[in-house]
Amino acid sequence: MQPMNLECSQDARHRSDAEALSTVCPHDGAPLLVRYAVARLERAALAARPWTMWRYREMLPVGEGDEPVTLGEGATPLLPLGHVAKALGLDAVYVKDEAQNPTGSFKARGMSVAVTVAKRLGATALVAPSAGNAGGALAAYGARAALPVRVYVPRDTPALLVDEMEGYGAEVILIGGLIDDAGRIAAEYARGSGAFNVATFREPYRVEGKKTMGYELVEQLGDVPGTIIYPTGGGTGLVAMWKAFEELERIGWIGAARPAMISVQAEGCAPIVRAFQRGEQSAQRVDDGSTKMWGLRVPGGIGDRLSLRAIRESRGRAVTVTDDEAAEAMRDMHRHEGIDATEEGGATLAALRAFVKEGVPLPTPIVLFNTATSLKYWPR
Amino acid sequence: MQPMNLECSQDARHRSDAEALSTVCPHDGAPLLVRYAVARLERAALAARPWTMWRYREMLPVGEGDEPVTLGEGATPLLPLGHVAKALGLDAVYVKDEAQNPTGSFKARGMSVAVTVAKRLGATALVAPSAGNAGGALAAYGARAALPVRVYVPRDTPALLVDEMEGYGAEVILIGGLIDDAGRIAAEYARGSGAFNVATFREPYRVEGKKTMGYELVEQLGDVPGTIIYPTGGGTGLVAMWKAFEELERIGWIGAARPAMISVQAEGCAPIVRAFQRGEQSAQRVDDGSTKMWGLRVPGGIGDRLSLRAIRESRGRAVTVTDDEAAEAMRDMHRHEGIDATEEGGATLAALRAFVKEGVPLPTPIVLFNTATSLKYWPR
Repeated sequence: MQPMNLECSQDARHRSDAEALSTVCPHDGAPLLVRYAVARLERAALAARPWTMWRYREMLPVGEGDEPVTLGEGATPLLPLGHVAKALGLDAVYVKDEAQNPTGSFKARGMSVAVTVAKRLGATALVAPSAGNAGGALAAYGARAALPVRVYVPRDTPALLVDEMEGYGAEVILIGGLIDDAGRIAAEYARGSGAFNVATFREPYRVEGKKTMGYELVEQLGDVPGTIIYPTGGGTGLVAMWKAFEELERIGWIGAARPAMISVQAEGCAPIVRAFQRGEQSAQRVDDGSTKMWGLRVPGGIGDRLSLRAIRESRGRAVTVTDDEAAEAMRDMHRHEGIDATEEGGATLAALRAFVKEGVPLPTPIVLFNTATSLKYWPR
Repeated sequence: MQPMNLECSQDARHRSDAEALSTVCPHDGAPLLVRYAVARLERAALAARPWTMWRYREMLPVGEGDEPVTLGEGATPLLPLGHVAKALGLDAVYVKDEAQNPTGSFKARGMSVAVTVAKRLGATALVAPSAGNAGGALAAYGARAALPVRVYVPRDTPALLVDEMEGYGAEVILIGGLIDDAGRIAAEYARGSGAFNVATFREPYRVEGKKTMGYELVEQLGDVPGTIIYPTGGGTGLVAMWKAFEELERIGWIGAARPAMISVQAEGCAPIVRAFQRGEQSAQRVDDGSTKMWGLRVPGGIGDRLSLRAIRESRGRAVTVTDDEAAEAMRDMHRHEGIDATEEGGATLAALRAFVKEGVPLPTPIVLFNTATSLKYWPR
């Protein structure tokens, strides 16, 4: 294992043992973050590395001799927008297309690292709550690591997402309620069974995988972008990239400049946006949360403070779009750009359109994230 | 444009103009192949290239100033098989996972090149017959190039494949019969309308995209593999890689050694295998072709001679597997390896299992191809 610590995200004096399979800070229950004692990765070393996120392995929680549990995740393309950007009078707008990951979503990155560490540190079973894509990814990586997987998903999750998990041999339990309800049941099951719970921010490893999106942006653009627009459910994507940029400055790849981090949520379920607008440090659960965007139907969660901090520190924003605006933007990404966007990916374009309409200038280049393939959600 | 010729695959004395949008050889109707006058690509140059198949752009039919129509295709991972290979007493077995392409299949590679060239040489509309994945890819690249697309597909094609094409704005025409029937109607439409027909081997550009699978194998392994097992429908995959290895020897990346190229077809639809077994140079149409593997439901086609030639020159083989063997192998790839295999991908593992059972030794490393994501075929 790399020399590293697990540091509480609320109080850096709280440290946890990096050689034990960790969950949250034992002192205050806050998410733990991995801190590397020796941070060093030369860009020149990347030339001969595989086209996966493991090209940054010195900055991931594995030792030199460890074999990652990998399905080739990461190294996704950064696609320039053409017609759709021109129509807004913009150039230098890109889509980071996370649909081209194993199991078709950015969730693969986090699960690759989490399952790698869990396997190495002796986990014998894995469990998670999921709105769909996290469960598919966990099921695949669990299969690859020969670890049994159980996933708790809301009963109304589209069938193909459940089929996918079961196809990889996972046990899928349908529950009433939303993703955080599923999270509570998953946590109970983990306590009772000893399965390792890889729920969002309930362990420090998935963030490490997701941060590689930030590493890749810098490798692809040569520097940080001006603006990142990210659809926010649990919030790990934004938080993880914010951590990446901090590390990249430390290892000398970038300077002090940071992108404006813009969080997009659904009008019908926007706990982070509401807290951001109210100037609050943490978010309240949205009890009547409703949106057709499955990945954004996250009424609340443990990552709220970290998300809000990243948005504010970056001088970013948190905005909502309606389901209809997101769906229209998704269709435009398909029809005019050939990009396999979901509604969540469309939501980032809808947000960009709103900024342009309101005359809000955004630093360029602008990177939108398409977090998953739309295939799992047909027919619509 | 690169200095290049279009050479008839049956008679190298027949040359066609590389500056016109070409179809087949005007003298004998055989497929045309691109030949580069100046073949040069240093491996050292690849370090700074994007993680897409366009990293080999000097060996693709574009000029220095041309902008490829790209969605980030290629640079797919080469995944070692674990449990499933051990159970066969083998190591050094890999899966080249083409599911991780845009639109979820290897068809993206061919369409990226074909649409790039078609756009540059003045095509105003595109048409193709498809069993599903080629149509999805063409629809996406057509959208990206702002060219209208029409696809002819057999009426019983799974709904999600049609939804995907329509999602990218393509006009989908359902027809009775099989893929070659669709091909005849597409060709008629092309003649009548002036749309460019990108049917398999009816133009010389898709092969150029697909050959990058061979370039990537050599970059990933450091040399050619010992054996390649490929599911064969129209046959472009095998033929294209065979061309790649010839070019790679010319530019000094590899020596004279070649992998054994093994073609896998479905027991119920195996024109290439039948012709191979009979020692014939061309294949007869299978009139009663039947298989659940959509990509292999190709009763005949123009690529038969080239496919048979590549298999024989490589000292390879052509074998069949049953639908059930392929489906079982597919499930094993999901459950034991975490790989998103289709039945066509499973067919390559089923073939490998048959070789092991019969005691047929295969040169290592062995590379199986998973040509597409299974997501489009659920529920099964």
